[in-house]
Amino acid sequence: MNYVSTAVTPAISPFDHLGLTDVTAKLEDGILIVTLNRSRKLNSFSEKMSVDLVRVFQFGDQDDRVRVIVLSADPSAPAFCAGVSIACRTIRSLVVLIELEVEHRDPGGQVAMAIYNNRKITIVAVNGHASGAGLTALQLPFDFRFIWSGSKITMPFVRLGIAPESTSTYLLSRLIGEARAAAVLFSGAVMQPDSPVISNLYYQVFPNRTDVLPAALILARNISTNSSQASISYSKGLLHHPGASIEEHHLLDSRAMKILGSSNDAAEGAKAFMQRRKPNFPDTLTKSLSPWYPWWKITDVRHPKSSKL
Amino acid sequence: MNYVSTAVTPAISPFDHLGLTDVTAKLEDGILIVTLNRSRKLNSFSEKMSVDLVRVFQFGDQDDRVRVIVLSADPSAPAFCAGVSIACRTIRSLVVLIELEVEHRDPGGQVAMAIYNNRKITIVAVNGHASGAGLTALQLPFDFRFIWSGSKITMPFVRLGIAPESTSTYLLSRLIGEARAAAVLFSGAVMQPDSPVISNLYYQVFPNRTDVLPAALILARNISTNSSQASISYSKGLLHHPGASIEEHHLLDSRAMKILGSSNDAAEGAKAFMQRRKPNFPDTLTKSLSPWYPWWKITDVRHPKSSKL
Amino acid sequence: MNYVSTAVTPAISPFDHLGLTDVTAKLEDGILIVTLNRSRKLNSFSEKMSVDLVRVFQFGDQDDRVRVIVLSADPSAPAFCAGVSIACRTIRSLVVLIELEVEHRDPGGQVAMAIYNNRKITIVAVNGHASGAGLTALQLPFDFRFIWSGSKITMPFVRLGIAPESTSTYLLSRLIGEARAAAVLFSGAVMQPDSPVISNLYYQVFPNRTDVLPAALILARNISTNSSQASISYSKGLLHHPGASIEEHHLLDSRAMKILGSSNDAAEGAKAFMQRRKPNFPDTLTKSLSPWYPWWKITDVRHPKSSKL
Repeated sequence: MNYVSTAVTPAISPFDHLGLTDVTAKLEDGILIVTLNRSRKLNSFSEKMSVDLVRVFQFGDQDDRVRVIVLSADPSAPAFCAGVSIACRTIRSLVVLIELEVEHRDPGGQVAMAIYNNRKITIVAVNGHASGAGLTALQLPFDFRFIWSGSKITMPFVRLGIAPESTSTYLLSRLIGEARAAAVLFSGAVMQPDSPVISNLYYQVFPNRTDVLPAALILARNISTNSSQASISYSKGLLHHPGASIEEHHLLDSRAMKILGSSNDAAEGAKAFMQRRKPNFPDTLTKSLSPWYPWWKITDVRHPKSSKL
Repeated sequence: MNYVSTAVTPAISPFDHLGLTDVTAKLEDGILIVTLNRSRKLNSFSEKMSVDLVRVFQFGDQDDRVRVIVLSADPSAPAFCAGVSIACRTIRSLVVLIELEVEHRDPGGQVAMAIYNNRKITIVAVNGHASGAGLTALQLPFDFRFIWSGSKITMPFVRLGIAPESTSTYLLSRLIGEARAAAVLFSGAVMQPDSPVISNLYYQVFPNRTDVLPAALILARNISTNSSQASISYSKGLLHHPGASIEEHHLLDSRAMKILGSSNDAAEGAKAFMQRRKPNFPDTLTKSLSPWYPWWKITDVRHPKSSKL
Repeated sequence: MNYVSTAVTPAISPFDHLGLTDVTAKLEDGILIVTLNRSRKLNSFSEKMSVDLVRVFQFGDQDDRVRVIVLSADPSAPAFCAGVSIACRTIRSLVVLIELEVEHRDPGGQVAMAIYNNRKITIVAVNGHASGAGLTALQLPFDFRFIWSGSKITMPFVRLGIAPESTSTYLLSRLIGEARAAAVLFSGAVMQPDSPVISNLYYQVFPNRTDVLPAALILARNISTNSSQASISYSKGLLHHPGASIEEHHLLDSRAMKILGSSNDAAEGAKAFMQRRKPNFPDTLTKSLSPWYPWWKITDVRHPKSSKL
């Protein structure tokens, strides 16, 4: 597998056809670095930003050169992401008036699914304040959350008379338990990352906001260099789609072990371990995934009848 | 909406018809304050207390004047709640002998459901020791738990040869994870709130037992004043009844966002935010909930055949 | 009930017919103490060890003399359990080549199920380093985990190109939440028990590795002496197999309360409590469980068609 660095070959940037405006993207040594690009507007969560994020995370999922995806913002921006602006929300609520109740599809939820369902490792580096979608869509669906200790974070939905967005009520409870999820959602309070109410959400917390992204990139490089993409995709599948009982899960992970156990990646992993060197995993998601993957049923949310669950 | 203070208009106390004896209730500025009323008997969990609690929480759920419900006890009582007394338990076990195995309905579970399914925010201020139902029915189903750091708390079921009551095995694992739930349930140990085994259950811990209820009331007033009841009811529904997958949940919260997004509360929330003033949400649960709510299936546990699941 | 101590009656060791080699077992005062017996090979997780563990935990589940099961290793061994050795894994991957994809059954998962489904209390005393199956099969399915603070622990699956084993993706998320589970699984990092990423997994942490087993045995004796086996089996069932909603769970625990409430153990529990003495619970799992137990459906994973879920 060859890694194409956009720094070396800018002419063939793989992102041109994505038409990104509200985020920027670059690919460095297998790491897709996505940056929110609305600093002047507090990086507020626009419709276009949601479209851009879905596109760039789907690109990362599909392209074998991408091994880890990191989302961040300019650390000098006034906020990591201020959520959907009230003005946008008001305009949007008029737009969606023409939709039937079962037709609406939350843009934040579209982003959350593109991240949570991603087969690559996803990391967010929260180097500023975050509100609403900045704490839901842009934090909860990631595999790892790095944050600046000074970040002010809040889910203000009950104080705005609206519903929690971006599948946050699904993810928050799974991530940190329902006791903490309820406290975050129903208080609507402004918290900081060291609050016991929310601290379990974060992998690492840093006193300087400029340290957040570099730390996230160190983990990203470590995972990119040392991990099997096939392994990660099966592991994420097993974690997100467990069996209904330990017995049913045993059948799932036994099958995954059988499939991966005879893979080229497993052979390379064993060899590298015995030779005490870094592995060079040959398998790619494009070529190497078993037809069994994904084994879970995926609801097509675009279908008009999908709401009739 | 007018708030009726029972202090001002005692003649029309809304509670007279509830026939409360083992708890007392008052309504102040949208906050329904319920107090356990068996201090002399360690506030032990009687049959009548369970009936009273179900009635008063159902009243709070139904009455639009109630925006938050707070449960507490007299902080000078020897215990917040000592659970079901052994004497009561022994008498009751004789009484239930005439019930078929599938007919029994745990009174503690009835209380837990009345609290957990409540559409209003529920807060408990645990200002004393708590055992059995005092830690299950009277703590786990609440949205927020405040506690005195000196409280001795325990679930002694395995040491009494009985089953964990009040849906505690359902709630505890969801609230703080199965590792901690198992430790609490199977040790039967007496803990204090700062024990890492149980600390994630609590929103705030106070060194003086007289400080617990006042702190709970501050949060109650904050939520009562600043939050939309419609928003809270949908948020609780989404948290307690998530979709079976992130896709199915996306369909649920998208629909909730569409419904609430065009509500009067959302308009008022946006206006208040822009005018930097407190909101005055007009919607009530009686008049404003969409026919879609509740979207989940509710098992009628009173039906004799409901046990044949 | 009589407790048979193997120290007193070595001639009738109940373990002879189990043919144990890679673990040893002894029964002392109702406590079945199982010790990993491959110190020279880092207690690495062999096929025979998995067979031995399944047998000895099933023995503990079935034999009424066993009230608590404790697993540990020699604290002077170089590791508590180093997981499956790379050599074994390579050999095994050749062996399983002849199996169909749906036929493979992970030995680690067999062990995890024998422990997680055990009706007795299970405790692990991790007095050394643990990797792979040493952290999955040999820690996650237990009711209580005691550990030495110096233990280096890791789940290296993504770095070896293989799938997480032993139902670890099922258990880890339930035990400590998906945020921490993802961090443990996807970083593949070497951690110590005080890391916030993993600390919620452990009941108690000890600075000296020789203190881990003695502490586990103190809890084991406490539970063995003071707890009802019937109570524990129902409590574990309710915790591991909750209803699909609070209402359905209320039906389950009401039935369990009705059954246990009129049991001999409940009568003895109440009497002992009132007489302020230790209880002497008469009920045994062999004779006293209701035909309703277990109330959940158990998938027979040995059946070739069980993978066609």
